[in-house]
Amino acid sequence: MSKLVIVGTVAFDAIETPFGKTDKILGGAATFIGLAASQFNVDASVVSIVGGDFPQEYLDLLSEKNIDISGVEIVKEGKTFFWSGKYHNDMNSRDTLVTELNVLADFNPKVPEAYQDASIVMLGNLHPSVQMSVLNQMTNKPKLAILDTMNFWMDSALPELKEVISKVDVITINDEEARQLTGEYSLVVAARRIHDMGPKYVVIKKGEHGALLFHDDNVFYAPALPLEEVFDPTGAGDTFAGGFAGYLAKTNDVSFENMKSAVIFGSTLASFCVEKFGTERMIGLKHNEVHRRLKQFKDLTQFEIELT
Amino acid sequence: MSKLVIVGTVAFDAIETPFGKTDKILGGAATFIGLAASQFNVDASVVSIVGGDFPQEYLDLLSEKNIDISGVEIVKEGKTFFWSGKYHNDMNSRDTLVTELNVLADFNPKVPEAYQDASIVMLGNLHPSVQMSVLNQMTNKPKLAILDTMNFWMDSALPELKEVISKVDVITINDEEARQLTGEYSLVVAARRIHDMGPKYVVIKKGEHGALLFHDDNVFYAPALPLEEVFDPTGAGDTFAGGFAGYLAKTNDVSFENMKSAVIFGSTLASFCVEKFGTERMIGLKHNEVHRRLKQFKDLTQFEIELT
Repeated sequence: MSKLVIVGTVAFDAIETPFGKTDKILGGAATFIGLAASQFNVDASVVSIVGGDFPQEYLDLLSEKNIDISGVEIVKEGKTFFWSGKYHNDMNSRDTLVTELNVLADFNPKVPEAYQDASIVMLGNLHPSVQMSVLNQMTNKPKLAILDTMNFWMDSALPELKEVISKVDVITINDEEARQLTGEYSLVVAARRIHDMGPKYVVIKKGEHGALLFHDDNVFYAPALPLEEVFDPTGAGDTFAGGFAGYLAKTNDVSFENMKSAVIFGSTLASFCVEKFGTERMIGLKHNEVHRRLKQFKDLTQFEIELT
Repeated sequence: MSKLVIVGTVAFDAIETPFGKTDKILGGAATFIGLAASQFNVDASVVSIVGGDFPQEYLDLLSEKNIDISGVEIVKEGKTFFWSGKYHNDMNSRDTLVTELNVLADFNPKVPEAYQDASIVMLGNLHPSVQMSVLNQMTNKPKLAILDTMNFWMDSALPELKEVISKVDVITINDEEARQLTGEYSLVVAARRIHDMGPKYVVIKKGEHGALLFHDDNVFYAPALPLEEVFDPTGAGDTFAGGFAGYLAKTNDVSFENMKSAVIFGSTLASFCVEKFGTERMIGLKHNEVHRRLKQFKDLTQFEIELT
């Protein structure tokens, strides 16, 4: 098993979907990543920042999942990052209603000393300078640095984003963002351009259409489980990344073959995440449920054709 | 091996894509289906109609692929069905520029006597009454009747379409059309509604996102091969259906397990179809190329995770 460092937001979300709406609930990229990674009982530390308004029970919840929270700074007089969004009827697009950076505006991440030698670093969606700061605090070059990002940073901090992209081994990015970053419509060509920017492995997330893993001339495809109903997509991408990073940390094997399994685990965990609001489904998720669903992924994708 | 009857258009297409444009070239649903099925050296007959303007060399081309064309009626004084379309830059949408029904307006299909006992019937995209007429000419109930259709018939001939849907075992339909037919956004729910209309097997085609095969509570997913470039999508759906039907005819096994392989063959052949204009790639396609690409599909989708 490898130590895993996760940086990202720990936040409040308020979500509206065609199925209902929530008040402020637990959210944030690092929260979803941490909850997904905790399925593998890995030695993980979350680096983040919250305000004095953040309930202790939410922090306890992460601790109970064996996630180290000594790297979560609490700014007593500050307020926690808050995001609010409303999903359209097709669940594939959303409007951001509110973004209050609050304590995140001055976030200066501090990786706990005990985790500065972690071999896997998961840089969740945040300002690329914050992601870079975490990388720079690692005393040994990590075995694998994984970066998640979004279009917002392409629009507002492209040079810093390109800098941190050049330093990581894996990037996870959605299809539209891969196109925006490269100006290429074909995802195969876009992946090659991103590869040229630094990452040896490129994961392109396609939401309900699954995810593609690219490495040199190799491609692997993990579908999303076809669901009767997507209740709330919030956190699905982070959960995917957390499952991916958590599985690699647990197995301590960063070969392409093992990354295939990591992508399948990411898809599997994401398929749970969308079944309830926010983190609700992930918090109660049991190992045997995950195993049953992995079996479904096998049935969904595995076939026998004799090649002569 | 089972006999296969294919009904559909044999036509002229004129295509414009961002990569170029063609004059009138060989096209039509039955042409693409037949060319795909011919990869399996099956005993197939195409039932269609053309005008006196249709080149003998195009008919010879089908004959050379061992496709029986005795069911292709030639109306000497008539003109062949002509379709012209222009693809948008994303290649996922197109405008129809010209549709000239010509001889197709009065098409009264006649299944050759030698094929009226065929065990597999592939009803390519055509007016549902024409599809029904072919079904009614079969002397034995076919082992498997497969229907392909499109939104045009939902708008213009819904009662006839529902009638023929109720008589077939398999339907192949694209995602937007499945949603239109059922009023359900979720493809899982849409497939169940279509199942309730008659077909035991529902194949939902998602273009560059692959295809889903539903049967009772079972789902199988075949991805599309990620391509650097889609040159011309014309005929890809028909090629998929032809690969599916051809493989089932060759193996004479209509179990769900074997249909998984049929879907993979359909996807594999469709991945070639889009590489050149019209039928060009399919006409020259060699067995060893298909085998190599099947290997790519295995690499793309197969993974090893021990389930404990």
